[in-house]
Amino acid sequence: MSGNTFGKLFKITTWGESHGKGVGVVIDGCPPHIPLDESVIQAMLDRRRPGGSAASTSRKEPDRAMIMSGVFEGMTTGTPIMIMVKNKDADSSAYKPYADLYRPGHGDITYQAKYNIRDWRGGGRSSARETVARVAAGAVAKAILEKETKIQVTAYTIELGGIRAKKRELAVIDQNPYYCPDLEAALEIENRIKTVREKGDSLGGIVEIAAKGVPAGLGDPVFDKLDADFARALMSIGAVKGVEIGAGFKASRLTGSENNDPITPEGFETNNSGGILAGISNGDDIIIRVAVKPIPSITMDQKTVDIANNPATISTRGRHDISAIPRINVVCESMVYLVLADRFLGQKALSC
Amino acid sequence: MSGNTFGKLFKITTWGESHGKGVGVVIDGCPPHIPLDESVIQAMLDRRRPGGSAASTSRKEPDRAMIMSGVFEGMTTGTPIMIMVKNKDADSSAYKPYADLYRPGHGDITYQAKYNIRDWRGGGRSSARETVARVAAGAVAKAILEKETKIQVTAYTIELGGIRAKKRELAVIDQNPYYCPDLEAALEIENRIKTVREKGDSLGGIVEIAAKGVPAGLGDPVFDKLDADFARALMSIGAVKGVEIGAGFKASRLTGSENNDPITPEGFETNNSGGILAGISNGDDIIIRVAVKPIPSITMDQKTVDIANNPATISTRGRHDISAIPRINVVCESMVYLVLADRFLGQKALSC
Amino acid sequence: MSGNTFGKLFKITTWGESHGKGVGVVIDGCPPHIPLDESVIQAMLDRRRPGGSAASTSRKEPDRAMIMSGVFEGMTTGTPIMIMVKNKDADSSAYKPYADLYRPGHGDITYQAKYNIRDWRGGGRSSARETVARVAAGAVAKAILEKETKIQVTAYTIELGGIRAKKRELAVIDQNPYYCPDLEAALEIENRIKTVREKGDSLGGIVEIAAKGVPAGLGDPVFDKLDADFARALMSIGAVKGVEIGAGFKASRLTGSENNDPITPEGFETNNSGGILAGISNGDDIIIRVAVKPIPSITMDQKTVDIANNPATISTRGRHDISAIPRINVVCESMVYLVLADRFLGQKALSC
Amino acid sequence: MSGNTFGKLFKITTWGESHGKGVGVVIDGCPPHIPLDESVIQAMLDRRRPGGSAASTSRKEPDRAMIMSGVFEGMTTGTPIMIMVKNKDADSSAYKPYADLYRPGHGDITYQAKYNIRDWRGGGRSSARETVARVAAGAVAKAILEKETKIQVTAYTIELGGIRAKKRELAVIDQNPYYCPDLEAALEIENRIKTVREKGDSLGGIVEIAAKGVPAGLGDPVFDKLDADFARALMSIGAVKGVEIGAGFKASRLTGSENNDPITPEGFETNNSGGILAGISNGDDIIIRVAVKPIPSITMDQKTVDIANNPATISTRGRHDISAIPRINVVCESMVYLVLADRFLGQKALSC
Repeated sequence: MSGNTFGKLFKITTWGESHGKGVGVVIDGCPPHIPLDESVIQAMLDRRRPGGSAASTSRKEPDRAMIMSGVFEGMTTGTPIMIMVKNKDADSSAYKPYADLYRPGHGDITYQAKYNIRDWRGGGRSSARETVARVAAGAVAKAILEKETKIQVTAYTIELGGIRAKKRELAVIDQNPYYCPDLEAALEIENRIKTVREKGDSLGGIVEIAAKGVPAGLGDPVFDKLDADFARALMSIGAVKGVEIGAGFKASRLTGSENNDPITPEGFETNNSGGILAGISNGDDIIIRVAVKPIPSITMDQKTVDIANNPATISTRGRHDISAIPRINVVCESMVYLVLADRFLGQKALSC
Repeated sequence: MSGNTFGKLFKITTWGESHGKGVGVVIDGCPPHIPLDESVIQAMLDRRRPGGSAASTSRKEPDRAMIMSGVFEGMTTGTPIMIMVKNKDADSSAYKPYADLYRPGHGDITYQAKYNIRDWRGGGRSSARETVARVAAGAVAKAILEKETKIQVTAYTIELGGIRAKKRELAVIDQNPYYCPDLEAALEIENRIKTVREKGDSLGGIVEIAAKGVPAGLGDPVFDKLDADFARALMSIGAVKGVEIGAGFKASRLTGSENNDPITPEGFETNNSGGILAGISNGDDIIIRVAVKPIPSITMDQKTVDIANNPATISTRGRHDISAIPRINVVCESMVYLVLADRFLGQKALSC
Repeated sequence: MSGNTFGKLFKITTWGESHGKGVGVVIDGCPPHIPLDESVIQAMLDRRRPGGSAASTSRKEPDRAMIMSGVFEGMTTGTPIMIMVKNKDADSSAYKPYADLYRPGHGDITYQAKYNIRDWRGGGRSSARETVARVAAGAVAKAILEKETKIQVTAYTIELGGIRAKKRELAVIDQNPYYCPDLEAALEIENRIKTVREKGDSLGGIVEIAAKGVPAGLGDPVFDKLDADFARALMSIGAVKGVEIGAGFKASRLTGSENNDPITPEGFETNNSGGILAGISNGDDIIIRVAVKPIPSITMDQKTVDIANNPATISTRGRHDISAIPRINVVCESMVYLVLADRFLGQKALSC
Repeated sequence: MSGNTFGKLFKITTWGESHGKGVGVVIDGCPPHIPLDESVIQAMLDRRRPGGSAASTSRKEPDRAMIMSGVFEGMTTGTPIMIMVKNKDADSSAYKPYADLYRPGHGDITYQAKYNIRDWRGGGRSSARETVARVAAGAVAKAILEKETKIQVTAYTIELGGIRAKKRELAVIDQNPYYCPDLEAALEIENRIKTVREKGDSLGGIVEIAAKGVPAGLGDPVFDKLDADFARALMSIGAVKGVEIGAGFKASRLTGSENNDPITPEGFETNNSGGILAGISNGDDIIIRVAVKPIPSITMDQKTVDIANNPATISTRGRHDISAIPRINVVCESMVYLVLADRFLGQKALSC
């Protein structure tokens, strides 16, 4: 059964493996007349590239986006847009020892269980490299929404390695390599990462995503509620283990009178709902948080088995990030843009 | 744009409003030869009915399931199964005052924004009554899985009104009206609910869902990962504001060496993954938790506006639960069964 | 695998068997604010009812449409519309002899091959009674298009039992029971039917469908071309064995210079294309023809086998039409309305 | 709205324009363990290439298939397969005069109406070059069916330019460039084509497709009937204007006793049904015929308008085939393979 397609009207299908010939995406359903060229996509992809922070891998991929179809003289034409990024620096020799060994916390063992075959080079299809395609598609979704609406999505780090941002100064998130809205916390994060890197271990954290300027009325009840789709979209990112909207898990400890957002002629007094009521946007900021697990690839010794189920010890020596944050942030943004673009187009169809 | 369909192979579409003629579901894609009659569905629906606990509404709905098609001589035939529950005790007069008033925390204001019309009687389509249809479909999904696998899904309350279960004694969850695996916590919950009911306020909590006996290999990477689909399925329940898998948000504070589940020839040593790696089941128990917000309908006075955006005060006097828990538990179970049945059928198609 | 859903944005799912409790449809994706009540649907259903012509069965079904959801105070609300018609006059005793016998030309043998079980009463799910649900949905599609566009779809009989209409006087199709645009041909048809009825045999024919007022620009290349969707929609009607657009099979014998429709500032000079170029409507009338096979149920003796594959003789004695025409005509209209409504909504989503 | 995806379980999405960077397809849902390399695809693509017959264009495209993902060590892995063919010999200068002129019989005018923009180079997305992607995907579908079943699909020319094959000697279809099962007819066709080519005109014809070895039970009632899907699949090919199954339009002139295929313990005595009853395969040969219109690009002068709706004269001087037959034959085969592979996988999911 296929699972590589996302969206109903703005529909994307991704393809590619970590160490194959490349990764890419076909976008089917992009409206015509959206200004688009490779620089628009590149700008978004560059934010996903390694290298900026202490948390990053040393793998150098130029990640050059190529638009292969669907754009004519700088404009989308309404036909499928294929965007491709070739794999350049794919050194799979480092992975050879793991062809027959399952890396703990990775999909090796489950891909083998499901398909009875897997491209073991760098995790193959289960590698985070697949998210290159999501970000490329997200850039197109963003271009649509920027042309047609005031929607702006920002993902930022509110916790990394247990260190929590105490502020939400979104203005400073581009001033530190962790996209953290609290510069003091960013410094602590830097130190925490360095310590953990020396041990050969890794870290997780929490990313918050804010979507501002979303008009009321987006989202398709019942099963395609806006929050349901955000949850699916974000949980489909490999490292994400939890998603919450607005007050989220904290709401479970509030009473109704505390949690309900009072309505006034000027708008909602509070935003515990996170901008979504009954699966439909209410015009307020949409606020989502995702729990990001620590990167499973660590150089410390771990217990595992080989494909014949013999016990073994493994130490994953490839080039890996210490934390999926901050590179995951633009992936989160992309997924939120993809959902919003899809719902925005869907809402037009309804307007009889 | 339509959003009332769930599933790819075992596909359900629900219909109906709280105070219309009824609610129901069409199941398209149920395999033939599954033993099914109305009692199978009724057993599951009865667990959703009000009345069992202090938390429940006094609305009395017999909720009698009628199978209208797709079953012949006690067996599914492979054709669409329509299951319908008529609305009987639908007293919409209690809602008349709210025809022009938006209830805080409800979908009234967003349905109006989206459609510019709404059936205001009892929340119309946004009412939790819609989940009757999900549970009916869930009973069919469960029947398939019970015939073909050892899968067993159980939802239980691990927190209500801030009171947390300290044990996981699943054997006792049917011995208390809150489906709580800790009888002492259940007593505290009972007291907490009574206090809050007197104030006219409401409560939220946390439900945990365990799926045992799930074979390794279910789930469709990339966007239809098993955890992504659980997240969507559960977040599509009106009261749910957060979903986490395995260690969930706690995983964001662990290091890789703490979070990775060591693999041994006998299986995984720990289950931080919650039974899912890279979106595919790993054979271990699947563990999911959902945050349930307090019921927004409370009798305390609240600030709101009317449909002309004039300020107003509202007190929701209908017949309402104090907490969506425990009636929501069987809805959660149903959604998990629906996802698993769909993926189970999908996995068969792959086996070339 | 499910196959009972049709449409992408205006999505319908039908359910029900010939001699079960009823047949119906859930419409998911109908825009709000479309005036709708049961009389709108009934008017369309009444055109499908038996009784009008010499070709019809004596089965008397009032076919009373009940709207169960999605309409509030005479208007659609944007939520799923369930329309149901209960089976009343379902005398399945007449079918009992055929429980173990396959009727030639029917789906008995293939349903058994596919599902290894079937509801044999009156053909079960494979009965033409299923088209009641299509017509009910078609009435809603028509209501949308009548509110929003000038589209008008008409199906008429251009051939029955080998007798071909020599004229296209659409004004007279309601003046004869065969919806034939040539009254002289209609008389000949009447005589032909009477002769064949006496022999216990049955007849086929050709229905032409004209859709006028379709704006240019509807249809989704590549696989969801407008003509491709009409072909699927119409071929999915049990009795249809062929579909052609515009000049159709005749076009295969023309040269390019004969077949190309010259374009002038006033429009196309001819309409060999049938109003569709490259899968997109061109603003001209859409012209489709379908080949309808003779009803397979005949009282003449036929060779068959029983479910144990023993040879047998069968004579189908139920109450049957002599020809699917003219009752099939409104089904054809409905399918064309369904496709057009879907594409009309889709086109709105594109208009950035 | 998107329309570039085909299939439910074996799902393909095509991309690319005639004179853009290339054309390609992503296949999502291919089972693992299917032997596949580029030569398998190339063999099928080579049958689509121009050059073999008098009817062909002089455009020389090596049409070299590149598998970009989803295959590892010669086997499919269950992950998306992207296959790409770069455009090499794309001389768009020949099309420049037509940037502002609509070619009669082409999609220029409708693409402009739909999208208000179009890649006019060689027809852009509406070019038959898009079928390269279908054939590549068809080769993969064929590989699945050859591994798992005895299904074999063959398309052959039974009429071209009005000259009809009088025999069905399938053994000789590879001995003449028109894939005609009647060598005498093939000679007549050759002469007819030469005459018409001199006049600068073009021809159409009829292709018959036979699928042998199809097991009984494939096809998903009600809307995804096997014949409905073939009709959609084949009508989605640009040049096709009609589709019929089995006796097809001829069935409309038969009586029930003539048209019904008698059933015997050894099988059906005749095959008027074309191997499909009630949308499900019956185990007999599946027989489909499609009407192919003459190529609209002709060098004779034709009336048209420019994009400002001024009258104009056009003569399409590019490099074009005289007839879409025989190059379309392998496209028809591919579409039939795609439908059958999809239904074959779907049938597995049902087998509880």
